[in-house]
Amino acid sequence: MAEPTRRAVAVNSDVHFGDNVTLVEPVNLYGCEIGNDVFVGPFVEIQKSVSIGSGTRIQSHSFICEFVNIGSDCFVGHGVMFINDLFASGGPARGDKTKWKSTNIGDRVSIGSNATILPVSICDDVVIGAGTVVTRDIFEPGIYAGNPCRKLRKL
Amino acid sequence: MAEPTRRAVAVNSDVHFGDNVTLVEPVNLYGCEIGNDVFVGPFVEIQKSVSIGSGTRIQSHSFICEFVNIGSDCFVGHGVMFINDLFASGGPARGDKTKWKSTNIGDRVSIGSNATILPVSICDDVVIGAGTVVTRDIFEPGIYAGNPCRKLRKL
Amino acid sequence: MAEPTRRAVAVNSDVHFGDNVTLVEPVNLYGCEIGNDVFVGPFVEIQKSVSIGSGTRIQSHSFICEFVNIGSDCFVGHGVMFINDLFASGGPARGDKTKWKSTNIGDRVSIGSNATILPVSICDDVVIGAGTVVTRDIFEPGIYAGNPCRKLRKL
Repeated sequence: MAEPTRRAVAVNSDVHFGDNVTLVEPVNLYGCEIGNDVFVGPFVEIQKSVSIGSGTRIQSHSFICEFVNIGSDCFVGHGVMFINDLFASGGPARGDKTKWKSTNIGDRVSIGSNATILPVSICDDVVIGAGTVVTRDIFEPGIYAGNPCRKLRKL
Repeated sequence: MAEPTRRAVAVNSDVHFGDNVTLVEPVNLYGCEIGNDVFVGPFVEIQKSVSIGSGTRIQSHSFICEFVNIGSDCFVGHGVMFINDLFASGGPARGDKTKWKSTNIGDRVSIGSNATILPVSICDDVVIGAGTVVTRDIFEPGIYAGNPCRKLRKL
Repeated sequence: MAEPTRRAVAVNSDVHFGDNVTLVEPVNLYGCEIGNDVFVGPFVEIQKSVSIGSGTRIQSHSFICEFVNIGSDCFVGHGVMFINDLFASGGPARGDKTKWKSTNIGDRVSIGSNATILPVSICDDVVIGAGTVVTRDIFEPGIYAGNPCRKLRKL
């Protein structure tokens, strides 16, 4: 019988850390930029070219994919999944990154646990409720929730 | 370049276990009370002051935060996320626990996988469907599902 | 005080691997059949009797339970949870597998991140949006999303 290739999660040497970062391992981090005073909880993966602004917390069980930028003083709850591939041609891009789309999260954005973030832009000072599926850009500060996501009220 | 502080998940010595508990590591457990005959699957975090009643199963990938009490003979599915911070002032409480709210789950409550549980009370003998977002207290036994959660029918 | 039984995730010796499989550990795999050219990301559990077809990718944080069969060239996103127990008698089957139901996923099925898949059949050439809760069988190729899942359009 064939033997699989077994790799292991790691904090790769190509991750750039600011000051006063705390990680709770196991985590899988590679090729990303982590700002000052960031916390990363356990069972988290952060892929290459991601940047995380200073003072932001990434809670346990979250997944942050390539092509995602997150601002400062954000809160990414537990089990939050970011997405860069919309299966636009009916299936996964399978490595053709010209088909991937980027996500930009402003500053002071709080994302509730189990939320799902498609490739969108979210402005500063937004609260995303737990369990929300964000499918469109958000241009106005406020509180958003639902599947698909709608604005509930102003902050 | 700065070096991050690296901690690791653990079963802390301050966890109080009943008889016949099974854990599948890696898990991150600290300061909590785990009753008799409880099962905790892999990739689970249970925070301090949580209590889990006897005979309850906590399945893989779930996160149980501070201020949550779960009764006996419950079933917490895979990827279930509990919440104690409603971002009530427009963002995370950032350690100000006077802003956190508690969750109380009765006995014989079954919570489907990928459900999200905001700080609520749920009475005995409730079934929460998979993928449900529970935003309000549940006072009557029955089957509940949806985002936001609604009662589907009696048990 | 009682001491818990501590087990650990593993790649059990009873897993049958095809050629060119890659795993990123920690993962918990036992009793399953993994086809050629399959990728399994970190923090994944695949239970016994599951079969995964060739060329399929299982991304991080996903859970694939007993009684699930997945075809070839599929994509299972991050944090996807499969289910075999509908709590049909008002609570978990607790080991009575006559109450469990099976899931059959065709070929070239792409399942978005944080989706929840109840025990259903899904035909070939289907895209399931991120955050979707699939509660019924899918017989026609197309793009499906929502909670509960509805057809959005043809592929």
